[in-house]
Amino acid sequence: MAPSPREASPKLQQAMEACRETVNKTMSSLLPGTELAEAPLFDGMRYAVLSGGKRLRPFMVMEGARIFGVDAARARRVAAAVEFIHSYSLVHDDLPAMDNADTRRGKPSLHKAYDEATAILAGDGLQALAFDVLANPETHEDPRVRIELVGLLASAIGPHGMVGGQMLDMIGEKQEFDVGTISRLQRLKTGKLIAFCCEAGAILGKANPAHRQALRNYAHDLGLAFQVTDDLLDAEGNAEEMGKPANQDGKKATFVTAMGREQARARAEMLVEQAVGHLRVFDAGRTDLLKDLAYYVLKRRL
Amino acid sequence: MAPSPREASPKLQQAMEACRETVNKTMSSLLPGTELAEAPLFDGMRYAVLSGGKRLRPFMVMEGARIFGVDAARARRVAAAVEFIHSYSLVHDDLPAMDNADTRRGKPSLHKAYDEATAILAGDGLQALAFDVLANPETHEDPRVRIELVGLLASAIGPHGMVGGQMLDMIGEKQEFDVGTISRLQRLKTGKLIAFCCEAGAILGKANPAHRQALRNYAHDLGLAFQVTDDLLDAEGNAEEMGKPANQDGKKATFVTAMGREQARARAEMLVEQAVGHLRVFDAGRTDLLKDLAYYVLKRRL
Repeated sequence: MAPSPREASPKLQQAMEACRETVNKTMSSLLPGTELAEAPLFDGMRYAVLSGGKRLRPFMVMEGARIFGVDAARARRVAAAVEFIHSYSLVHDDLPAMDNADTRRGKPSLHKAYDEATAILAGDGLQALAFDVLANPETHEDPRVRIELVGLLASAIGPHGMVGGQMLDMIGEKQEFDVGTISRLQRLKTGKLIAFCCEAGAILGKANPAHRQALRNYAHDLGLAFQVTDDLLDAEGNAEEMGKPANQDGKKATFVTAMGREQARARAEMLVEQAVGHLRVFDAGRTDLLKDLAYYVLKRRL
Repeated sequence: MAPSPREASPKLQQAMEACRETVNKTMSSLLPGTELAEAPLFDGMRYAVLSGGKRLRPFMVMEGARIFGVDAARARRVAAAVEFIHSYSLVHDDLPAMDNADTRRGKPSLHKAYDEATAILAGDGLQALAFDVLANPETHEDPRVRIELVGLLASAIGPHGMVGGQMLDMIGEKQEFDVGTISRLQRLKTGKLIAFCCEAGAILGKANPAHRQALRNYAHDLGLAFQVTDDLLDAEGNAEEMGKPANQDGKKATFVTAMGREQARARAEMLVEQAVGHLRVFDAGRTDLLKDLAYYVLKRRL
């Protein structure tokens, strides 16, 4: 039977599944566990991280690292750190004062499964844990590499990155943004972390500036394409594909509300072609899966 | 006029005031500012950090660094990072789902002055900014020093540190703890960050292990003494001294509820003497203010 157009190619699917399994194991070993009185915090952190998810960001880290022959065990620690950050951001975004989402990945969101205090603290703890993992010598023996990862991640998720983007997102619920501001919102909210994911392999592998820039450019275009297709999926009300209630962003400024479906679709296609183009500087064999990933992002909405 | 027993010695008072001013300037220069749409986030971060406070933690960083002749501009960046973390923890602790505190340092808490979403995000952003500041080469030219600071801070404020302590604190509202668990709660919630503050100077100054351990011990005893006197102040209902509504911790497990006022008082005195004792390994002239600080912590409750 031919794969449904929404599915990834068998090769990509297999690779993503393998990545998901190994990174889940790494994350589970890095997450705290205890019989002590604060156990609900640790349980909440595990619930937030290990309740499914495609692990797209870890996959980008692992594939970026593979280009430069980086040891997979090291790359997995960075992949885990990134997913801790992504999970924390989802937990805080779901809070009643933010998006007020009762479900996430088809399960109760953390503050519903536990309570709000645990959700706030689990998110806070996951952010700290991510930096703890990066700072550990097991991530890379060269402290310059580790501190570069820390600095880049901190800036990607701080007020000039993810948190600033989330603030814009909240403001966008009450106020209409133009396409320029929506682009900036997405670059901050999701683009900078995705750029970190793609760039991390180049940092771990001490790649030359041109190679590093190529991955940054790939991430930039792919991140934007990803957001445009997310907006399209949401506008088309495909809850199954999204893993969260559809049309949640109904009141929010999105690419679809700003430029219409047809233009948004054309924009996503152009961005994916651009993203793939940036990979030409590498040996083709090393970037097959990153190319497949880009086309997969696009296919999701066909 | 003789100073009131609650006041610090004139010399300590002057030094703390000078530290407060310079660190406030450093923090203000490190905090984001913008005319862009996400400005409320940046305003919230500034409100959280620059709305007063004694800056005890920055003072510990600066005085610890002075022992080893560390450049003050570098130490101030670490002091700022620590205060960003402390401020974030206060903002999140004040949230309705946590301590539900309407005021902080005599002003509306951040979620009252702005809203809950801004408070959650401002806290998240301050945590990221702290790591961003530590990772920057301006903090120290040696990446090994910077990554050591990052790793120690991340572990001090993560699930096995501050966030774990805050979780215990929430659980302690519904459940009675014994003195052992209360001690652990405080070591996690406030002790580990205070230990980082005192140890940071030794890391910046590449001090020998014995000197570093001495500061860690000083911090351990001082941190515990600080918490016991805080519990005493709260039990005695001194809102002015606390800068927050008194008896807020009425339902919580504290040293006073666990061991009674007299024993708590005696414990605090013993801890301060122990703390001062650890400083004997240093030239007396270099630790005068850290000794004064220890006695000041004790005097607060006389």
